[in-house]
Amino acid sequence: MSGEADARGAGRRIAVLLEYDGTAYRGSQYQENGPSIQSELESAVNRLTGEKVRAAFAGRTDAGVHALGQVAAFDTTSKLLPAEFVSGLNHFLPRDVAVRDAREAAAEFDPRRDARSRVYRYRIDNRPVRPALDRDRAWHVARPLDAAAMQRAARLLEGAHDFAAFSAPYEGRTARTLERCDVAVRCGRVTVEMEAPAFLPHQVRRTVGPLVEVGLGRLPEEALSAWLREARPSSAGPAAPACGLYLVRIAYDGLAFGPGQGDGQS
Amino acid sequence: MSGEADARGAGRRIAVLLEYDGTAYRGSQYQENGPSIQSELESAVNRLTGEKVRAAFAGRTDAGVHALGQVAAFDTTSKLLPAEFVSGLNHFLPRDVAVRDAREAAAEFDPRRDARSRVYRYRIDNRPVRPALDRDRAWHVARPLDAAAMQRAARLLEGAHDFAAFSAPYEGRTARTLERCDVAVRCGRVTVEMEAPAFLPHQVRRTVGPLVEVGLGRLPEEALSAWLREARPSSAGPAAPACGLYLVRIAYDGLAFGPGQGDGQS
Repeated sequence: MSGEADARGAGRRIAVLLEYDGTAYRGSQYQENGPSIQSELESAVNRLTGEKVRAAFAGRTDAGVHALGQVAAFDTTSKLLPAEFVSGLNHFLPRDVAVRDAREAAAEFDPRRDARSRVYRYRIDNRPVRPALDRDRAWHVARPLDAAAMQRAARLLEGAHDFAAFSAPYEGRTARTLERCDVAVRCGRVTVEMEAPAFLPHQVRRTVGPLVEVGLGRLPEEALSAWLREARPSSAGPAAPACGLYLVRIAYDGLAFGPGQGDGQS
Repeated sequence: MSGEADARGAGRRIAVLLEYDGTAYRGSQYQENGPSIQSELESAVNRLTGEKVRAAFAGRTDAGVHALGQVAAFDTTSKLLPAEFVSGLNHFLPRDVAVRDAREAAAEFDPRRDARSRVYRYRIDNRPVRPALDRDRAWHVARPLDAAAMQRAARLLEGAHDFAAFSAPYEGRTARTLERCDVAVRCGRVTVEMEAPAFLPHQVRRTVGPLVEVGLGRLPEEALSAWLREARPSSAGPAAPACGLYLVRIAYDGLAFGPGQGDGQS
């Protein structure tokens, strides 16, 4: 696509930093059966520039999953400045999707393949009764969680392992390096934050589910080590629900968005 | 009403701690032209107990205003335990309203009149572009705020004053004691928290509006002192929008809800 745009004389690749509330969407990627973040973004670009573009996304998020710092890229022949893409796209996007920043990217920039690291955050509301304000923004677990046990179990997963047990069915290599799996408690919320160069499909939700089982005392911490060792595809469970998951941040070499964007707030 | 219930032989007054997302409601109190938190609560009590009750609220919140710790009370002849009111009412309430706790209250308990202190929090999203996740949960102010100047101005309002300038039109005495007006900054958000035994109508929104003008450098801090001194009704302005306002906590002598309820999370 960059080549096509170049051939028309003014091709550029624009990278955008996206925040969205995934509640009303079928997922980040285009879906036949309902609205997606991709179709909203492509439609907003079309209304702003008149061009039909195809946006590539850094991470595929499922229906109901949120983002503070998703990254997407598209090619354009428009002469608009990056700041004009921010304000123009935000004018056309629905209220539950926002472009937080935009940058010129290299013609070969691929938001998925070029990602150096990704951070996901999972929020659990651990108060005894269901929340009203966070109803689609966190997983409500009413019984008290032992966050220290969850953190010990999470540490067992850090490092380079075969994460086949913690993945949805997947056809490729299942070795990954989990650089960080932190459990934090604040104001009745338990948060699990995971960082890795790359994740397997559903890996965060399929990790948080067992961690909560540990936190409830229904699963020994060592079960997670055994799942890693045995590496039987999709054997760890259960998966945590989508509503608690946030794609927080994606890091690249040679592309940086403005400070204070895309993290902290969830 | 308590007398009526007593006359039927088993009257009790139940106090409930409410959390709600005010976005879809016309306000806390019963309204002819749309849904209210009061009508939702009364309807849930009716479905749970079969009784028609009238709920009294501690604080009147406007359309779009949220609560982490609103308090309401109603009389009932039901034999349900307080914990059964919590789970039963949450079963019948819509997802954007939740009962966080319930307690037996004295027959003469009046949630509005008996309140010893109230805490309101106002959230401002101070990042350069509009939020997606917090779209109805904070006031978006795009230009950077000088929070230190806001805090200095806020301190001028603390103490016992005539707050007529900072009130919607009001027929009564306008002297109040603002015990605390704190401005805090965290992760791109500016939060104003105010505590007082009682507030005037719209007082928080009509205080935050001028504080933001100070933070934008469009109003000198001393203007707030002048408004206090002159005490011309409703002269301070503008009012901040409803979506950023949270009723956080109400304190009583002789009635306490469970720990960790009703604050912290906003």
